[in-house]
Amino acid sequence: MGNGAGEADGAAGAGEPGEPGLDPAIAARLKRDPAGLVAAIAQQFDTGEVLMLGWMDDEALRRTLATGRCTYWSRSRQEYWVKGATSGHQQWVKSVALDCDGDAILVRVDQVGAACHTGMRTCFDADQLAAVTGSRDAAAG
Amino acid sequence: MGNGAGEADGAAGAGEPGEPGLDPAIAARLKRDPAGLVAAIAQQFDTGEVLMLGWMDDEALRRTLATGRCTYWSRSRQEYWVKGATSGHQQWVKSVALDCDGDAILVRVDQVGAACHTGMRTCFDADQLAAVTGSRDAAAG
Repeated sequence: MGNGAGEADGAAGAGEPGEPGLDPAIAARLKRDPAGLVAAIAQQFDTGEVLMLGWMDDEALRRTLATGRCTYWSRSRQEYWVKGATSGHQQWVKSVALDCDGDAILVRVDQVGAACHTGMRTCFDADQLAAVTGSRDAAAG
Repeated sequence: MGNGAGEADGAAGAGEPGEPGLDPAIAARLKRDPAGLVAAIAQQFDTGEVLMLGWMDDEALRRTLATGRCTYWSRSRQEYWVKGATSGHQQWVKSVALDCDGDAILVRVDQVGAACHTGMRTCFDADQLAAVTGSRDAAAG
């Protein structure tokens, strides 16, 4: 997903004045794209379903770590977006991990209801692409 | 992960002359970043582990769909990169899905050995961030 279409929620501005920013030790490890964003994968913590991909800047990551709720940066609306604030489909944070080169975040969550704005459980349910499959056994044989 | 450090493999150039490109019906659904890329999440097909995040342009996706092996675009080396061609840690494609807004791809794979260039099984194993956790039950109570 990643644009939060239909969820114009939690659209607070940047961090409040005087509010501490993201931990500098974490900020130093982020490898941001030219827009200042890293990719954030939301995964259902117990079933392992990959729910959606969103985007976070430093402030969205800070809010996600501090509040127990996933906050993303909406690239289409150019605002922060607290997942589920309008739809009720909250993402409750269970754990957050940064990848080896700092350009991706894995957030394990408890997803209430549908993760996708289309009403599907995940954003990857509707558009399977035809693919040749491979197998380690065939390769070894 | 996403940069394939230590895996200078499969570095063929763009599609061969006369080779058909990505299916136009798929290409029309992609929402590429300014560098022409979409994010690609690799997930172990049976355990559900999120292994890594890489990047694909149209040609990398075409090769992934056509060969049964994951091919990424290395942003750091600016070349195609067939996962495991040097390391032996191949990703055998089991299924490929596009997300609802076309800016992310979920590739379910059979990952041989370590997905991460550090030798860890996944790129998200080493850097857990301290996070406040949330719960739907606490919210309801």
